[in-house]
Amino acid sequence: MEGEGDRAAAQYKFGPYMIEAGGVFHATALSYAMVNLRPVLPGHILCFGKPISEIQLMIMLMACGGWVFWFDLSSDETCDIWLTAKEVGAQLEQYHKASSLTFTIQDGPESGQTVPHVHIHILPRKKGDFENNDEIYNAIDAKEKEMKEKLDLDIERKDRSMEEMAHEATEYRGLFS
Amino acid sequence: MEGEGDRAAAQYKFGPYMIEAGGVFHATALSYAMVNLRPVLPGHILCFGKPISEIQLMIMLMACGGWVFWFDLSSDETCDIWLTAKEVGAQLEQYHKASSLTFTIQDGPESGQTVPHVHIHILPRKKGDFENNDEIYNAIDAKEKEMKEKLDLDIERKDRSMEEMAHEATEYRGLFS
Repeated sequence: MEGEGDRAAAQYKFGPYMIEAGGVFHATALSYAMVNLRPVLPGHILCFGKPISEIQLMIMLMACGGWVFWFDLSSDETCDIWLTAKEVGAQLEQYHKASSLTFTIQDGPESGQTVPHVHIHILPRKKGDFENNDEIYNAIDAKEKEMKEKLDLDIERKDRSMEEMAHEATEYRGLFS
Repeated sequence: MEGEGDRAAAQYKFGPYMIEAGGVFHATALSYAMVNLRPVLPGHILCFGKPISEIQLMIMLMACGGWVFWFDLSSDETCDIWLTAKEVGAQLEQYHKASSLTFTIQDGPESGQTVPHVHIHILPRKKGDFENNDEIYNAIDAKEKEMKEKLDLDIERKDRSMEEMAHEATEYRGLFS
């Protein structure tokens, strides 16, 4: 069982981190969508490209410190991740009875990115969810930093259990079946 | 000459607004990139889809108050606008000697969108350009509201002249020739 779990988890590599398979609720040919360890709002999820090969990772590590930037995605990957983001956003907006969406990419350390693998934040939005709209970005920044610290330290996840995340992912999987 | 100017401007419709052709610096089959009336940082530009037909606009007006949402874009439009955004982002990051990029979409009124036509904000980022990274989003929100007011009122643009915008657009056009 442990071996099987390891194999499943190995399929979900997010930058240098291994992501537990239970949190991934949708996959296409080139992209994944996963629930968030530290969501800012209900339905705040992340879309990211499928893991690159070890050889590609080695080349990138030597070229730019191991970061996977937006520009590193091929045309096919760019299209796939945004078609996925569009579909996922529409489903989660409806599921959470929201009326708008926020999409944002922090591409590189100077834009606030901490996990070094390009990813899209998608957040269903409702009237009055943040008193001032821009406060949502403060929250995304803070939570992304916390997420990286959690992943780096691999310490006990007091804020959200894997069971809670897996339950949410199961709910969302039903939207794409 | 006036007729020719009108014809050129008519090609650049941004939601209900007519955009002056001088500010558009790059165009693909389905997308435009234009300099910003109210940039938050040097190189802060907007990418948006080519105008829809009057018939499509009428249908959308009846269906959802005239808003063009992210979900309204076809797969071809989605791919085209993001391949454009990727290319434009890479060129402007280099041009402005920046080291990161911020991409963001406010999709619908509850996410802070004011101009009712889906568009991507692209901003080259440098170390220390904003003391706290999240402040950039406060600025984007504030400037987008101001841009809409300006477009709505069609009043004198005291903040940025068309000459200044056209000069910037000419510089950027050179990056794609």
